[in-house]
Amino acid sequence: MYIDEKYKMNMSNLKYAVVGVGALGGFYGGMLAKAGADVHFLFHSDYDHVKKYGLRVDSVLGDFIINKPNAYNSSYDMPACDVVLVMMKTISNNILKKILPPLLKEDTTVILIQNGLSIESELEKDFPGIAIGGGLAFICSNKTGPGYIKHLDYGKLTIGKYKGDDNVFSKICSDFNGAGVPAYFAADLMLARWKKLVWNVPYNGLCVALKSDTKDLMDNEYTRALLKDMMLEVIAAACANGYRIEKSFADEMLKSTDSMKPYNPSMKLDFDNKRNMEIKAIYSNTIEAARIHGLDMPKVKMLEQELKYIQSKY
Amino acid sequence: MYIDEKYKMNMSNLKYAVVGVGALGGFYGGMLAKAGADVHFLFHSDYDHVKKYGLRVDSVLGDFIINKPNAYNSSYDMPACDVVLVMMKTISNNILKKILPPLLKEDTTVILIQNGLSIESELEKDFPGIAIGGGLAFICSNKTGPGYIKHLDYGKLTIGKYKGDDNVFSKICSDFNGAGVPAYFAADLMLARWKKLVWNVPYNGLCVALKSDTKDLMDNEYTRALLKDMMLEVIAAACANGYRIEKSFADEMLKSTDSMKPYNPSMKLDFDNKRNMEIKAIYSNTIEAARIHGLDMPKVKMLEQELKYIQSKY
Repeated sequence: MYIDEKYKMNMSNLKYAVVGVGALGGFYGGMLAKAGADVHFLFHSDYDHVKKYGLRVDSVLGDFIINKPNAYNSSYDMPACDVVLVMMKTISNNILKKILPPLLKEDTTVILIQNGLSIESELEKDFPGIAIGGGLAFICSNKTGPGYIKHLDYGKLTIGKYKGDDNVFSKICSDFNGAGVPAYFAADLMLARWKKLVWNVPYNGLCVALKSDTKDLMDNEYTRALLKDMMLEVIAAACANGYRIEKSFADEMLKSTDSMKPYNPSMKLDFDNKRNMEIKAIYSNTIEAARIHGLDMPKVKMLEQELKYIQSKY
Repeated sequence: MYIDEKYKMNMSNLKYAVVGVGALGGFYGGMLAKAGADVHFLFHSDYDHVKKYGLRVDSVLGDFIINKPNAYNSSYDMPACDVVLVMMKTISNNILKKILPPLLKEDTTVILIQNGLSIESELEKDFPGIAIGGGLAFICSNKTGPGYIKHLDYGKLTIGKYKGDDNVFSKICSDFNGAGVPAYFAADLMLARWKKLVWNVPYNGLCVALKSDTKDLMDNEYTRALLKDMMLEVIAAACANGYRIEKSFADEMLKSTDSMKPYNPSMKLDFDNKRNMEIKAIYSNTIEAARIHGLDMPKVKMLEQELKYIQSKY
């Protein structure tokens, strides 16, 4: 296994499992492994390919290949780990109930590095005893082939605690930073999730509904206004749930998107490849969180309805 | 010119101009002409074809050809008429200012057989003196070639007075009925317009946004709910404007659409043929009529924004 010696002294002794080795898991897990962390990868369809050819990451930070990663095709062959990084799409979270048990010991922390809302509480229902965290990846990366990740831009990771020991979360952030990934510990995980939804809700779905990339939508005055309308609905829902986000945050998001390259969000890539979209975690759960506080999100709701229709036509 | 003698005794002595000889004007004007009414057709690109081959209407009521209609390619060659039936798309209403003057005499009635809102008041601004009416066509018909109309189903015409003499409107309805077209005089034109918008607003735009026909949208639980949501927004806007429509009217519209054949509304045909869509008359004017009474129409507004974006990408 390829290890970049300049990082090795930075790594803790935490044993990591990576569940979901796609655009996110391949990059973030690969970066930890390259730096010498003890990382165990659970592969699915790419297992045979990776066993033969390794895990390849072409990154703006430098290309690398992990030739002989600790690769598995069943979690029952894996060791129990200190940290489980879940980096698959939320649409597969129902299989965590089957996958996680052999990976867990008494003090394991499971971190859901995924988009959307209410996913930690759903995991807690199935595993009431474990430590749980959430993570948000601000990254442009794609899986372009089996065991082959292209990391195009950005890469910041925000990690927050849902329940568990602060020290473990600090260690994890430190491992990522030590491996060259800018990682931050968010004091308020849910606020961080809501803030990310301010971007994800309008761009992910509207790029699908209008078969466009982010730049197309930003360049047209009507869709630009619509993007902002939806951002303000998310901000209002966040506030109703007790997470204070200023309205001006919508303008910040628009401005920062203006400076991005034209981009197809992950949901657009899912649509293009006729994969199921993360409608529940990003839309339905958000709408429900607003509804229980008596708040409507009419435009977000309409986008959810359009997306469910579009997915039914695959 | 072909005249069906069995109808002729039914016709008044009104002189008709038909402005816009497409799916509507070809059928309704053709039916009047066939029955022996004095009808003068203003053609545009189809003029030469119709001069040579006549106006052909394949109708579920019986096929016919008007071999030598009174055809013109400029309104300045036409006689002043008692009634001007405007049956082009509202997107061209700006040219009425140029077309109408030679057709008008002191007591001419101009009837806008078109979809949407606020079109009579816009005409009144340019022609403050004339009598104005509106008409609503409940019909499935298409222009499939030059001077060639296919009438597939339905055909009811609702005519209402905006300003003018009730007797003239009665005569016009009587002429249509005498020619085999079921025509009704609506006591309240604006109520009739709002009621038609309850159907037009959701189906026209959503068939475009989701590239679907009416049946596809009705068969999916999410778009069916969305259609109803938008109907209720239109009903609320009608009520805010003083036109009382019961909420149960939405369920009636859904039920009556269930019994229709799968249908591509006119805006979907415009989209398919990359023609400009009637966004202003059907959406923007409706949203504005709600706004001046302090009412938001968030889902209808979102559909308007999507349609404007889609049209910008032609």
